[in-house]
Amino acid sequence: MLKIHHLGHSQSERIVWLCEELGLSYDLQHHARDAVTRLSPPALKALHPLGAAPLIEDGELLLAESAAIVEYIIVKHGGGRLKLGPEHPDYAAFLYWFHFSNGNLLPAMGRLMMVSRAGLPADHPVLTAVQGRLDKVMALVEARLGEAPHLAGEEFTAADIMSVFSFTTMRLFQPMDLAPYPNIRAYLQRIGERPAYRRAMAKGDPDLVPMLK
Amino acid sequence: MLKIHHLGHSQSERIVWLCEELGLSYDLQHHARDAVTRLSPPALKALHPLGAAPLIEDGELLLAESAAIVEYIIVKHGGGRLKLGPEHPDYAAFLYWFHFSNGNLLPAMGRLMMVSRAGLPADHPVLTAVQGRLDKVMALVEARLGEAPHLAGEEFTAADIMSVFSFTTMRLFQPMDLAPYPNIRAYLQRIGERPAYRRAMAKGDPDLVPMLK
Repeated sequence: MLKIHHLGHSQSERIVWLCEELGLSYDLQHHARDAVTRLSPPALKALHPLGAAPLIEDGELLLAESAAIVEYIIVKHGGGRLKLGPEHPDYAAFLYWFHFSNGNLLPAMGRLMMVSRAGLPADHPVLTAVQGRLDKVMALVEARLGEAPHLAGEEFTAADIMSVFSFTTMRLFQPMDLAPYPNIRAYLQRIGERPAYRRAMAKGDPDLVPMLK
Repeated sequence: MLKIHHLGHSQSERIVWLCEELGLSYDLQHHARDAVTRLSPPALKALHPLGAAPLIEDGELLLAESAAIVEYIIVKHGGGRLKLGPEHPDYAAFLYWFHFSNGNLLPAMGRLMMVSRAGLPADHPVLTAVQGRLDKVMALVEARLGEAPHLAGEEFTAADIMSVFSFTTMRLFQPMDLAPYPNIRAYLQRIGERPAYRRAMAKGDPDLVPMLK
């Protein structure tokens, strides 16, 4: 059976959620963050050189990198569901938003998270540049969710599963006010009504109220 | 015909290189960086809200996000070449390294680039944390290229096309000493001997000697 190594309060929630959406059975291995550093615990670090979650085990295979895991599970165990293929009219939009999640959205938040910790004055040009980039990225998502109910278009897809973490749990590490983004907030409410999302969050992070507002 | 918007000295070199590897014809639209800010020029910013390259046009479609473009071109125009499918023994390795390029490698360099510009003392904990993360990521690539000639394994794939920019042209923006990484340096020498790579760099960035050392 597929084993998911899930680090509490981390992007590995994507994988738990994916498996719930696909109706797959899996063995959920919980790892708690170090109470002081908030980083991965030794048991998780021992599994892979980058020491981060998500990680899955599938027989002999140990696989890291959340986008790789999502694609692997969909193709190998999910019958290709939640991906759009080249014949679908929203194929290019699906590819764009799927890859946007790790190509632009999460890196923009990650840069701001690290730069914010440097203790720079609020008007420091590096801080304003990094914040400005994140504002642009968020404005693009807001516009998209004004024209379609999901990132790829009408259909809920793996592009949503890849992206939601950045708007929700990632805010534990890099706070972000969603007030300027009514379309994103409405989208998160819709996501929060999905039974698979509720099950995933309840199983993966029972101590956390999903940050959907 | 496929039109590629290429910003000089940028990750859009990936797309020019991909098309050369696939033997596709394309219309190459050059954009030069602003001489002072080193950012995208107005003509490129006008095309897409994020104002960055690469961008492609394919008939009515305008598509950004380099991983999305790579996948789109391979599937729609390249007959699926340079991707490994689920039946291939290196399928999971291909997925890992393809997604690693934008999921870990480039974000680690991007964080260091921004934090470095903040003017922190060399022993500032944010700087050492970000540098430490990049060191781990580089060590992982170095180890991989000690066990296989290409990132996915024996075969040259799109995982290489996605990753090489971080070791080469990205160093214009975030210098990195490759001396500690003999396997990566040998790999870059092999890449530099590929006729398609040479053609792509000559067409895309004729003013730049490919940074393969």
